[in-house]
Parts: sequence; structure tokens; C-alpha cells
Amino acid sequence: MKFRVVEIQQSILRKNDDLAGALRERFARSGTLVVNLLSSPGSGKTTLLEATLRHFASSHRVGALVGDQATRNDAERLERSGAPVRQIITAAECRLDADMVGKALDGWNALPLDILFIENVGNLICPAEYDLGEDLRVVLCAVTEGEDKPLKYPLAFNTSQVALLTKIDLAGAVGFDRAAAYDAIGRVNASIEILEVAARTDAGMDEWFSLIAKRLQSKLLPVAR
Amino acid sequence: MKFRVVEIQQSILRKNDDLAGALRERFARSGTLVVNLLSSPGSGKTTLLEATLRHFASSHRVGALVGDQATRNDAERLERSGAPVRQIITAAECRLDADMVGKALDGWNALPLDILFIENVGNLICPAEYDLGEDLRVVLCAVTEGEDKPLKYPLAFNTSQVALLTKIDLAGAVGFDRAAAYDAIGRVNASIEILEVAARTDAGMDEWFSLIAKRLQSKLLPVAR
Repeated sequence: MKFRVVEIQQSILRKNDDLAGALRERFARSGTLVVNLLSSPGSGKTTLLEATLRHFASSHRVGALVGDQATRNDAERLERSGAPVRQIITAAECRLDADMVGKALDGWNALPLDILFIENVGNLICPAEYDLGEDLRVVLCAVTEGEDKPLKYPLAFNTSQVALLTKIDLAGAVGFDRAAAYDAIGRVNASIEILEVAARTDAGMDEWFSLIAKRLQSKLLPVAR
Repeated sequence: MKFRVVEIQQSILRKNDDLAGALRERFARSGTLVVNLLSSPGSGKTTLLEATLRHFASSHRVGALVGDQATRNDAERLERSGAPVRQIITAAECRLDADMVGKALDGWNALPLDILFIENVGNLICPAEYDLGEDLRVVLCAVTEGEDKPLKYPLAFNTSQVALLTKIDLAGAVGFDRAAAYDAIGRVNASIEILEVAARTDAGMDEWFSLIAKRLQSKLLPVAR
């Protein structure tokens, strides 16, 4: 039984990798930068994304896919930014997969986009195993969650290129230990880029927007047009 | 493929329910109150549990099983309370199951216990599906996580008898909307008991300890000794 389960799980992940590869080619053709946001529930993905969509909406074709087990709450919040948003209700599933992303793109009149953000289901574990064809995986961790999360959920931090320490405006109130947090992240992923942000006070947000703009630029560079 | 996966998942859950039933009988025979703690990463399970073990250690035989994907950090923190603690490293698994609990109990010289706390893996989704033979399922949600979590992760709140709003000392700093939080919890589970606590300041902790003591008493009452 155990063996059959592992076998089937591996076959699901292999199939997902194939679908993610096809998505990546499709995004390369359309010159779309794809950013996959991972975090626990309540780390501030939606608040950050709302501010980010608002920032880029005036200058770029930007949109978002939002995974949630049960509600449309996040999509409704993100739509206030004016950017096109599609909700993926995952029901029993604890993460998005490439098949769900492909289906959500079907017939979406917002395409092609310059930047597509994907807000994954609030979960630090399962989403880390599923490639969605993204260019950039960003893991968010609020300073209210404690400094040891990278050590406890290594795959999410190990497979991400950027770590956002969110709710940095609360660092004092919770006695956040910055050195311990950086040490924990560095032990899991020495090359990850770390930014400190607070969407509520705008702290660090310009740096985050620049990072996205730079990645978009370097994605477009090698393509002859 | 999809059908085979669902079938196997259901068979795993059925097998887990059988094992959980056997655990429940075993705990009934030993008069052990079992409390399963569920929450996102960083909601304060370990801090609450450390204070709880410390409180009960002088008057009761109390111990803890701690699930974690990768580290022994939580077990080491809990051991400072002086209570016996066993760590379950779940590796790729995103939750504890009844089989892991049964194996962790094997040969544990701390048994029998009056109260066994089980700190589940930090994840609001997957652990909600797995019965561990507990008497009491407690879901923790920090006020820093926002008020809508019950609606987004309904199963965790729907299958719990107690909801702890943790880090209540930060309610002011994060602009916590108490009415919205109670409304969201009530819509998912109208009969759940809600307590507001902060292990850091001791707020509400006496009420939490009383709740556990009362549950232990009512568990022992019907048994003729």
C-alpha cells in the first residue's frame, strides 16, 4: 500500500513537471514574467499582491491567478486594484498544480500579460512540490511567525529565489530577531535574495517593485523581436 | 488516473480512521485526555504548549508528541518544561496520522499519561483530515493572521471543538477586528468554544488551563474505578 502510494505520488509530480514545462514555453513565447507566491495562511500574500497589482497596472499588462480552498475573498480584494484576476477554487487540494493553472488560463481575455502573479494556497508545505511554470518563486514569511520557519519548512525556502520578510512594521512589537531569521534562511538557501517589506506602511515596497521590473527586463532581453 | 488517486486517498483515510479508533480505545482504557493542536506555522502552538506543559507538570502526568517536517526545534523547546516529549519527524508528509502516533507511543516509558498533547505539523489544511484518536481538537489562529482564516480553511475549524485566538496582546498593533473574527468562526462552526489567549503575557491562559482540567475530569467521570 505504502509503496503504491509513493509510486502514484511520483507519477503525479512527473506529470505536473511535464505540464509546467509546457506552461513555461508558453509564457516564454508571450514574454510573460510569472511569479509564484508561497506562504502560510495570513503571511500577507494578498495585501502585498494588491499593492503590487496597483503599482504595475498603469504601466504594464498585469494580472493574477489566486488559489483558495473555499472562498473568493482574495480575488475580490485583488480586483479592487483594477487588474484582471481569476480565482482557482482548489476544494480538497492543498496547493495549486500546473493543470489548474493551464485550465484557468483557457479563454481568459486578459491574455497575453506582461506579468502574471500566482497566489498559491496558504500552505508552506504542499505547494513547494509543484512547479507552475513560473520564472520566480517567492516565499513570504511574516515577522510575527517567528524566525525558525525556514528550518522547519526547508523545501519552500530552498526552491524559492526570493524571500520576503513581511509585516516588518511589527518587528519591534513581536521582538523579531533579524539576525536569527537571516541565519535560518541562509542555512536553507545561501543564494536567496531577502527583502523586508510592509505593504501596510509601504516599507521596502519600492525595492520589491524594482526587483520585479528588473526580472521582467532580463526575461525579455534574450528574445529577438 | 484521477479516479485511482481519489480511491487511494479514501482508502488511506479509512485505514487512518480504523487506527485512530484503536488509539481512542487505548486512551480510554488508560484514562488519558488527548488534545490535538492544529494551526498554520507561526500561530504560537509551541509557545502555548510550553506554558501548558509547565502548568500541568506539577499536578498531572502530562506529555507531548510533536510533529515537524524537518527539525527537533519544537521538541527541544518543549523539553524545557520538564515534561516528557517525543518528536515525530514527518519528512515529506504534511500532517501527522494515527499510525505515526501509535508508533511514537511504542515503548515510551512516560506512559500512561493523564494528558497527552499532540502538536500537529504547522499546516491548516492536511492535518484536518486525519483523526489521531484525540478527545479534543483545538485550532489556533493568531490575531496577526487576519480574520478570514476560518472561511478559507473551513475543515480545520469545523472539526475542532475549541478555537484559540492567539497573540491577543498584538490585537491593537495589527488592528484586529474581533467582531469579524467571531462572525467568521461562527459561520463555519456555531458550537465551537472560543478563547482569547497570549502565552507571552499570560492573558486568558487560566481559562485555557481550566478548560483542559474540566475536560479531563469529565473524561474520567463515567469510568468506574
